[in-house]
Amino acid sequence: MSDSGRFITLEGIDGSGKSTQARHLADRLRAEGFDVVLTREPGGSPGAEEIRALVLEGDPDRWSAETEILLFTAARRDHLERTIRPALDAGKVVICDRFVDSTRMYQGLSRGDLRAQVDALHKLMIGIEADLTLLFDMEPGLGHARAKARNTAEERFEDFGADLQARMRQGFLDLAREFPDRFRVLDAGRGIETVAGDVARVVLEHLR
Amino acid sequence: MSDSGRFITLEGIDGSGKSTQARHLADRLRAEGFDVVLTREPGGSPGAEEIRALVLEGDPDRWSAETEILLFTAARRDHLERTIRPALDAGKVVICDRFVDSTRMYQGLSRGDLRAQVDALHKLMIGIEADLTLLFDMEPGLGHARAKARNTAEERFEDFGADLQARMRQGFLDLAREFPDRFRVLDAGRGIETVAGDVARVVLEHLR
Ligand SMILES: Nc1ncnc2c1ncn2[C@@H]1O[C@H](COP(=O)(O)OP(=O)(O)OP(=O)(O)O)[C@@H](O)[C@H]1O
Ligand SMILES: Nc1ncnc2c1ncn2[C@@H]1O[C@H](COP(=O)(O)OP(=O)(O)OP(=O)(O)O)[C@@H](O)[C@H]1O
Ligand SMILES: [Mg+2]
Ligand SMILES: [Mg+2]
Repeated sequence: MSDSGRFITLEGIDGSGKSTQARHLADRLRAEGFDVVLTREPGGSPGAEEIRALVLEGDPDRWSAETEILLFTAARRDHLERTIRPALDAGKVVICDRFVDSTRMYQGLSRGDLRAQVDALHKLMIGIEADLTLLFDMEPGLGHARAKARNTAEERFEDFGADLQARMRQGFLDLAREFPDRFRVLDAGRGIETVAGDVARVVLEHLR
Repeated sequence: MSDSGRFITLEGIDGSGKSTQARHLADRLRAEGFDVVLTREPGGSPGAEEIRALVLEGDPDRWSAETEILLFTAARRDHLERTIRPALDAGKVVICDRFVDSTRMYQGLSRGDLRAQVDALHKLMIGIEADLTLLFDMEPGLGHARAKARNTAEERFEDFGADLQARMRQGFLDLAREFPDRFRVLDAGRGIETVAGDVARVVLEHLR
């Protein structure tokens, strides 16, 4: 948790609408008079974006899950120091498209059970958790179809397959139960405007 | 420690002769019939070399000490998985020019006291310590003069200044006292051949 209560993260499986809703939320909060920083992970600062490129481009076997966890944590540390902390200290609302919960799921679950290592590393080198985490929950097939409709050079994480996406969905729901104070689960299978309305209501309630 | 006892690291301040002696040692051990892998840190595997480039090039303030520790540990993990472990498992002698002791000193001491964090991270994500560590001990002014005589694009760590180099020297000597079982301290202020003779004697004694 941050001191200000203004650190908001968006989580969920691929194609669940995180980036779309992050933009909508930023617009809405700005319209309400909040100072907003919209950022994303991996990335979110110049150094972290370079690390992101190193991790996401190239062969899927290029890095082991453990090396990947370390690289993502290095990027997160830079992102925290250069972008998130300064914004929170200046009283801004930080909307972050994915954060450590994605590492807990993707690196923690996808290739063996590395969850304990992800948590220990996070505690040692990062420390902060979001004040509010919006989980975009959705039937995996729907997210996959949406994601396939886009074009991206960062193909490595797109080919998880239906099985793993189903495990990811369940993993995120389990995480929401593990951290009930900060998680809010939203039905992301509905239209963009409907979901955006829910998001705005939950976030404005939290910020007031 | 490795199972084989064949993991040898070379440590010491800048310009103390680590790379020079690593090459001499590799030649000597090969002449004695050993299968040798000569490697270095940061780097030592294709992925780790890319991380090395990311860390060492550019502005000295580009990364915080904490981010740097994470990047070096990511590189080390890759190096361990792709180069060191396979070589040790195949019965080879691994000569590694710098390893975690350099991180303990440079990142651990140079910008605040991060030694505890370096150790915790190493324990969590790497685990292995060298079987034998050769410390090339020398008056810092001498090392600086030698280093300046070379040309390198990786300037970031060359400009530590005399004060810090003196603290590094003392830090390495303290480390040798902390791990007396694996450290051997050598006087690196002598001629290359003289030092190489000492190195060969200590290592051959250890391997037999
Ligand atoms: N509620 C929605 N209904 C229909 N399509 C949507 C909805 N939300 C987003 N989309 C579309 O689905 C695709 C994926 O959305 P978006 O990029 O926001 O998801 P994401 O969760 O950020 O995905 P990723 O995990 O790959 O970053 C986009 O083309 C987007 O326009
Ligand atoms: N015993 C020695 N006497 C004189 N010069 C030496 C000796 N050992 C090495 N040198 C020279 O000093 C310079 C630095 O040596 P070397 O590169 O082996 O040190 P290093 O410890 O690997 O340095 P760095 O920490 O910068 O990698 C080189 O030009 C090398 O030829
Ligand atoms: Mg997205
Ligand atoms: Mg060298």
